[in-house]
Amino acid sequence: MTLPDPAARAGAILTIDLDAIVANYRLLCKRAAGRVAGVVKADAYGLGMAAVAPALAQAGCRSFFVAHLNEAIALRALLADAEIAVLNGLMPGTAGDYRAYRLLPVLNDLGQIETWQREGAAHGATPAILHVDTGMVRLGLTEGEVQRLAARPERLAGVPLAYIMSHLACADEPDHPLNAAQLGRFRSALAQLPVRAPASLANSAGVFLGPAYQFDLVRPGIAVYGGNPLPGQPNPMRATVRLQARILQVRSVDSPLTVGYGATYEIVPPAKLATIAVGYADGFPRASSNRGSAAVGGTRVPMVGRVSMDLIVLDVTAAPAGQVHAGALVDLIGPEWTLDEAAAAAGTIAYEILTGLGRRYHRRYTGSGAGAP
Amino acid sequence: MTLPDPAARAGAILTIDLDAIVANYRLLCKRAAGRVAGVVKADAYGLGMAAVAPALAQAGCRSFFVAHLNEAIALRALLADAEIAVLNGLMPGTAGDYRAYRLLPVLNDLGQIETWQREGAAHGATPAILHVDTGMVRLGLTEGEVQRLAARPERLAGVPLAYIMSHLACADEPDHPLNAAQLGRFRSALAQLPVRAPASLANSAGVFLGPAYQFDLVRPGIAVYGGNPLPGQPNPMRATVRLQARILQVRSVDSPLTVGYGATYEIVPPAKLATIAVGYADGFPRASSNRGSAAVGGTRVPMVGRVSMDLIVLDVTAAPAGQVHAGALVDLIGPEWTLDEAAAAAGTIAYEILTGLGRRYHRRYTGSGAGAP
Repeated sequence: MTLPDPAARAGAILTIDLDAIVANYRLLCKRAAGRVAGVVKADAYGLGMAAVAPALAQAGCRSFFVAHLNEAIALRALLADAEIAVLNGLMPGTAGDYRAYRLLPVLNDLGQIETWQREGAAHGATPAILHVDTGMVRLGLTEGEVQRLAARPERLAGVPLAYIMSHLACADEPDHPLNAAQLGRFRSALAQLPVRAPASLANSAGVFLGPAYQFDLVRPGIAVYGGNPLPGQPNPMRATVRLQARILQVRSVDSPLTVGYGATYEIVPPAKLATIAVGYADGFPRASSNRGSAAVGGTRVPMVGRVSMDLIVLDVTAAPAGQVHAGALVDLIGPEWTLDEAAAAAGTIAYEILTGLGRRYHRRYTGSGAGAP
Repeated sequence: MTLPDPAARAGAILTIDLDAIVANYRLLCKRAAGRVAGVVKADAYGLGMAAVAPALAQAGCRSFFVAHLNEAIALRALLADAEIAVLNGLMPGTAGDYRAYRLLPVLNDLGQIETWQREGAAHGATPAILHVDTGMVRLGLTEGEVQRLAARPERLAGVPLAYIMSHLACADEPDHPLNAAQLGRFRSALAQLPVRAPASLANSAGVFLGPAYQFDLVRPGIAVYGGNPLPGQPNPMRATVRLQARILQVRSVDSPLTVGYGATYEIVPPAKLATIAVGYADGFPRASSNRGSAAVGGTRVPMVGRVSMDLIVLDVTAAPAGQVHAGALVDLIGPEWTLDEAAAAAGTIAYEILTGLGRRYHRRYTGSGAGAP
């Protein structure tokens, strides 16, 4: 019995270009004064850590950041020698995991520092990262805690620091006053702290704020994955994903009709509709209802009616007829309708589109690292 | 080396109550005149088809609906004897899969009927479902196509029909005129079609529109999973999910500060903040930024600032102090802050919250069927 290509069964095909990811990483290496970490949390922003992390490692990346301990354990299985840091910090009861898998906890408060110091005293000191909050107000030591460390240097004794880091809140708005304020507070914290270590502040947009923000290590995420780190300006990064959805059915409409749940869209006939096999259960936002678009052979076509769980209806009246038939593919993210445009049409950002990319898509990796994982 | 419980490493714990799912299914069986199908597309609305489908089968469910062929193939491996229908229809090149896995294609247009007729002639006829569009305008035969079948009954010769179905667009708005219009069109199609078969029209809300809408088989989805099929009225269904997020860090704020990306929220001191280990990469909508809530020991606390990829900040000033510490769990969906409330706060519906439930959660099944898969 011959079964068809798995791609033929799939409602959509997601193509991830590892060469583009590596090219973006290399471009950031050129822009940054110091080293460039690989930020592969959230399954490498939805693109698959198992493929992306080895590709970045092959490109020379040695330091990786994830959010969760479980992500770090999975990454250790992929990269035996990489430096792996866990941004969400040292949770109660997990210090043994950090030792077992040779991971760097990001120490976000005095209690975590104390725990790591105690662990080091008992089992041998291993490095951590100290995270100083400078205005993100999410994780990290407060100014008061930095002062307490300054006053009592012994609290950091036996806690080797690989880095001292902070995180920018408004780097994608270069003129926002918080950028300079955070930079000033970070410098002040580095000066106050009783130990010296390489410093790390910038995310993707932070890299483009210039050398003052780059310090010894930058941690770009979205730019590596092709999102625009410079909103409002041309995107310097290469696109890394293409999302093609399959047309299930085409119909001509010659009398007035409403489309989809809630009957929110009225078709003005004559019109041609195509229903595609992607919906919000694939992570394609329901907020795209009556606002999103797709591209069919170079023509942008609107989503009409509400995005439903498994399906979206397009008004393909203006599309080239030869490309509108059951089984044909249309671009939901592609060269003519970009990731950032798809995100904006849904009232969100590229990050949420990427990390939401669904599990029902047939995933295809291209590029030199594609065979690796 | 002793490692902690995997739940201790997780940023959040998702508990899925299989008993509640089965109780909801049984309640719908009492409400419905005919049989009740299990709608397990989109990985059983995000709750895990591998656990949910066997639990429903144990409760007496024999007919299952999925959206994609790949979902049906996965379901066949779980349930050897169930009737499994694929709503997205018969795509080019996939007829062999339907035969191999004994699946029912939903035939959505004349071309698909012709393909299935030809397959049947070559390999032996097997059942399918005929889908008539009555106003959803998404998939299914148009009125014109129904008329063409009526005029040429031989187009359905050798195509055994398990059901003739349609789908309601506005059932959750009981007074919407489209409901009665769709019912009328469905009856008219059943009368016109040259073959007889059991009929199926109602989704969850459709079941509650009354006996006229129920026909021989109903196909409730969201109600089985605990979403309210009667918006604006008390929810008759049992909650099936609880989502508990872990507090990573607590901080007291005694001077004015802004929280998170874009500095969109200004804290009025004195205040206490807790940062939890869930973000939009877990499928928790970024649209909850500055709008969502959590529940801490019976107290509802607001999300402040933007939801970020891996983290959310709560203003826990009003919460019981004893329950606010690193490692503690807060409810993002639970008895005091329901699925439907969490969805509304994000400007969406329970369906999108469920189908978006992330992969980083530690999943725990409770109930009698929990050991099954």
